[in-house]
Amino acid sequence: MSARPSWFSIPRGSHFSLANIPFGIISTASSTTPRVAVAIGDHALDLAAFAAGNGFAALSTIHPHQAVFSQPSLNAFAALGRPLHSAVRSYIQAVFAADTPCPEALKTNSALQKQSLLPLTDVQCHLPFKIGDYTDFFVGLNHAYNCGLIFRGPANALQPNYKHLPVGYHGRASSVVVSGTPIRRPHGQILTNPSAENKVPTFSQCKKLDFELELGAFVCRANNRGEPVPIGKAEESLFGLVLLNDWSARDVQAWEYVPLGPFNAKNFGTTISPWVVLTDALEPFKVKAIENDAQVLPYLREKDEKSVYDIQLQVDLKTSAQSGNTSTITKTNGRHLLWSFPQMLTHHTITGCNLQPGDLLGSGTISGTSLSECGSLLEQSENGKTTVHISGGEERTFLQDGDEVTLTGVCGSDEEALVGFGQCTGKIEPALTLDF
Amino acid sequence: MSARPSWFSIPRGSHFSLANIPFGIISTASSTTPRVAVAIGDHALDLAAFAAGNGFAALSTIHPHQAVFSQPSLNAFAALGRPLHSAVRSYIQAVFAADTPCPEALKTNSALQKQSLLPLTDVQCHLPFKIGDYTDFFVGLNHAYNCGLIFRGPANALQPNYKHLPVGYHGRASSVVVSGTPIRRPHGQILTNPSAENKVPTFSQCKKLDFELELGAFVCRANNRGEPVPIGKAEESLFGLVLLNDWSARDVQAWEYVPLGPFNAKNFGTTISPWVVLTDALEPFKVKAIENDAQVLPYLREKDEKSVYDIQLQVDLKTSAQSGNTSTITKTNGRHLLWSFPQMLTHHTITGCNLQPGDLLGSGTISGTSLSECGSLLEQSENGKTTVHISGGEERTFLQDGDEVTLTGVCGSDEEALVGFGQCTGKIEPALTLDF
Repeated sequence: MSARPSWFSIPRGSHFSLANIPFGIISTASSTTPRVAVAIGDHALDLAAFAAGNGFAALSTIHPHQAVFSQPSLNAFAALGRPLHSAVRSYIQAVFAADTPCPEALKTNSALQKQSLLPLTDVQCHLPFKIGDYTDFFVGLNHAYNCGLIFRGPANALQPNYKHLPVGYHGRASSVVVSGTPIRRPHGQILTNPSAENKVPTFSQCKKLDFELELGAFVCRANNRGEPVPIGKAEESLFGLVLLNDWSARDVQAWEYVPLGPFNAKNFGTTISPWVVLTDALEPFKVKAIENDAQVLPYLREKDEKSVYDIQLQVDLKTSAQSGNTSTITKTNGRHLLWSFPQMLTHHTITGCNLQPGDLLGSGTISGTSLSECGSLLEQSENGKTTVHISGGEERTFLQDGDEVTLTGVCGSDEEALVGFGQCTGKIEPALTLDF
Repeated sequence: MSARPSWFSIPRGSHFSLANIPFGIISTASSTTPRVAVAIGDHALDLAAFAAGNGFAALSTIHPHQAVFSQPSLNAFAALGRPLHSAVRSYIQAVFAADTPCPEALKTNSALQKQSLLPLTDVQCHLPFKIGDYTDFFVGLNHAYNCGLIFRGPANALQPNYKHLPVGYHGRASSVVVSGTPIRRPHGQILTNPSAENKVPTFSQCKKLDFELELGAFVCRANNRGEPVPIGKAEESLFGLVLLNDWSARDVQAWEYVPLGPFNAKNFGTTISPWVVLTDALEPFKVKAIENDAQVLPYLREKDEKSVYDIQLQVDLKTSAQSGNTSTITKTNGRHLLWSFPQMLTHHTITGCNLQPGDLLGSGTISGTSLSECGSLLEQSENGKTTVHISGGEERTFLQDGDEVTLTGVCGSDEEALVGFGQCTGKIEPALTLDF
């Protein structure tokens, strides 16, 4: 994809090129009411201000709906449907193009530029959606295999159902937070000696605190309860993607998760990146998912062979050492999934579950095939048996207090036309002192 | 508990005696906007109309908050906190007492009686809360044991963690519906021959559709993320209880649930009763939970030995036979729980999960020790191996199309002072014809 020249200064290498136009919710010190914006280079375009200043004059289809840009979440905008998301994105791309057909919208309107174009450094980002339900899948095949290997050995690493359905579970919506929100180390029940005959847990701070590198997808279309979404229609229900860190207390998880799945081990916090990259913007980066050697049931079969995305993913760990050691500990790619988001969405609804705009679907941890491509410390340290070396001579098995984990993701190689997600960051705070 | 005489006619045996005063959300044909009401005998008292007609004149603490009664959910009222719920309930009890200290509020105000007292037959009940997150626990020990027996045999019927923590998982909030909403038989992936070496599922209508008899509790107080709710404070966070039917597709569940728990098998619908019985109203019926022979960690230890409720629970099945066969297939009691709702709530937050007013906690299926006390057909039919005899010569292993399941629950034996839940009903509709 080649770069489209802009009259506006977009730094080379920005995740938020004119090819992107991701949506988010912002506020500023001088205007504290959260509202809708898009990110462009080092700036946010405040769409509430832009709409109020008649910026959308030349896009009549949005006129009846402009109040959505003053909402404190993207739910109402998302509910307008993909054709309108597409129209608004294309329009904003046209507004910023050097040869814009509507220069009066912004290019020659310095008053509106002043009102609506805000340096990202002056902007506070909020959770982009009011999330009704959050579902976390487990479709990163390499991760699922690695975890199975650690807990059950190679013969039973993957369960018999794994290649027949996108395995998933309901997550906790209330504790999904936006990038930058600190994560407190949790307490919980832990089985200190799992091999002992007498299995009695202790109450303790989590000693195996981990991150999980995932992609998240936001739903934009409701389906009625009782009416599954056919696979051919599933893409229409997907607004866009974010980076997602599914923080995990591995020691709590190991003790609690049988037979009903992870609960406390995951419900203390899930971090997402603030700028939602539209499914449209990701379209040029579609690639084939991991080949599935099982016979997939017809309701999950996709027409298009390419249904996941070539997103270069990375995890950086910054320690609290005075020197501020930062290491890239994971490099992997969004293509390492066995099932696509349309498949996850269709499967989610196949028994009749109703989805709503603002529902969040997580992919599950994304790992490549080598250790340095693994999207969790559980895998990289083989559940604490080995250490992960980081710069400055430090090493980790799991996260320590003060560690800051940053996920990044970007599509493309043309430095002037990147489609990126920005950052998804969280820092570990020490556990509270509990008097019970 | 003895009956308090009322000037208002409350039928003997009503679940909604003056000792109860449960809260719900109603609308009527002539006034379709959902608003808050309480149930009294065969009537609803419309609290929006009552407040507008100056009915709360003698309860000054509610004056600044009366707008909550015009809300379409109980979330705002619940968020006012238990002292105010208690004050409103006591006030309404006083308003209806034969010797009411404020006759002008309603007793002698026939105009307001006409405006605010509505026959329940004229009232449509709605979901009482906007549910943020729904969590389903599994603390009915007999049910957990029975299920374990069916799937894993007697040696491993209960997992090692079972008596140390209230096992639970995140459920699906969007598909929680109010009593009376039909439930469509789902499709899903089913492993027809689990003992075959080659485990390949088929796509089919659910053939093992089941109910689950549960209690649900609504949260009324938010805790901050990262800050657990101590056990001594947990009751303050509990607004009240409802009956809950956790519809389950057992064949879908058996195939999908390892390793992350039930997902599609439960997310197509969960039915709750419309009238929320306040924790205050249940206080006189507190009893001891099932004795736990494990050493419970201090954070889960309750001061009060009595922390569950003596609620007589019943399941009735009405078939679609022309004769309308109705049988009581389960009789059991709310006391058959290993953990109380305060323990569930504290455990839920122990890693720092933030709860919000309107969150729903399910107890898990409640079963006694004999077959006819079991709260699911899975247990009663031993997973389809035996049949459950119902009247008119019919029998069931699992639910058939047209079957209507009704849960009821009531506390007390004085016919003039019952504290009951009314009904929680749902009828099975035939599966859709899917063209995929």
